[in-house]
Amino acid sequence: MRVPVPLAHAYRLFNHGPTALVTTAHAGRTNVMAASWVMPLDFEPPKFAAVVAANTFTRELLLASGECVLHAPTTAQTDLTMAVGTHSGREIDKFAVHGLASERGTHVQAPLLAGCAAWLECRRVPEPDSEQRHDLFVLECVAAWADDTLWQKGEWHFAASGPRTIHHCKGGLFFATGERLQARRES
Amino acid sequence: MRVPVPLAHAYRLFNHGPTALVTTAHAGRTNVMAASWVMPLDFEPPKFAAVVAANTFTRELLLASGECVLHAPTTAQTDLTMAVGTHSGREIDKFAVHGLASERGTHVQAPLLAGCAAWLECRRVPEPDSEQRHDLFVLECVAAWADDTLWQKGEWHFAASGPRTIHHCKGGLFFATGERLQARRES
Repeated sequence: MRVPVPLAHAYRLFNHGPTALVTTAHAGRTNVMAASWVMPLDFEPPKFAAVVAANTFTRELLLASGECVLHAPTTAQTDLTMAVGTHSGREIDKFAVHGLASERGTHVQAPLLAGCAAWLECRRVPEPDSEQRHDLFVLECVAAWADDTLWQKGEWHFAASGPRTIHHCKGGLFFATGERLQARRES
Repeated sequence: MRVPVPLAHAYRLFNHGPTALVTTAHAGRTNVMAASWVMPLDFEPPKFAAVVAANTFTRELLLASGECVLHAPTTAQTDLTMAVGTHSGREIDKFAVHGLASERGTHVQAPLLAGCAAWLECRRVPEPDSEQRHDLFVLECVAAWADDTLWQKGEWHFAASGPRTIHHCKGGLFFATGERLQARRES
């Protein structure tokens, strides 16, 4: 079940560097793309940095609406993540082609895809120079959600046999998030 | 053994979102800190984005020298990664306290820490606005290296029982990089 995550904990949903899916919506058009280059940028209010390449349909909708949703897909969505990163939403309706279930965001118009591990509803913080020079967008998270079978008490709890978040290396090669390691705390 | 990685493949060393160690050196002083917020920003020449908080010793040395080395530490370095993220290099010499073996970079003065999975020798690309507003630094990678027991033929090959890269969630909780998942390629 999708449950709210306090904004102060939103960074923890992406701190471990998972691959993202990005949804956008504007004037009746919606899109979803994959983005490996997404990371937290600040704690509270939570901000994220995301690279959205020039000439993508996602960038067009993000600039037009000022909004997007960052998702952390699961191991069960590995093929989907590869597929939506391969075609442009200008050519096909990826929601129809892949039969994607979604619901409307609570704070933004971009949809929340079903079956993900985490959702970050975001508004663009305009940084025209970074956007132009590096395709780098700054996003403020205004609502955060996680799947309560994977996220409890402010941290990820993945079972080795169950869905986990995924990390893209290159060209369709992903790694699942592996086992927990608790660092020794110094006094 | 540390072997060179072609610059066109440098992004793949950090594409899966591992936690980084950052070394810096200037005028006889050196430092190392942990940084979770590091990601690729461009392919070739390879660029990376890294958040380096204001008032850190690393930031002082990075600004003074214009150089740093990004490392991907391994599961064997989890405690070390936590420890060097806890204390400031202004207070202690972390290389001495932790008995860190290192060698000088080939293109930059910042040291290459022994025992890591990957090394990116980087030069700062000045972006004063991003640095001031978001603590966000743009770094161009001028030399890339990987451990040849973990990196072969342009991609990571981790054994479940051996060292892997690590991903920080929060407060000393890390996840190892898990098993490989090859997405289905569409025709």
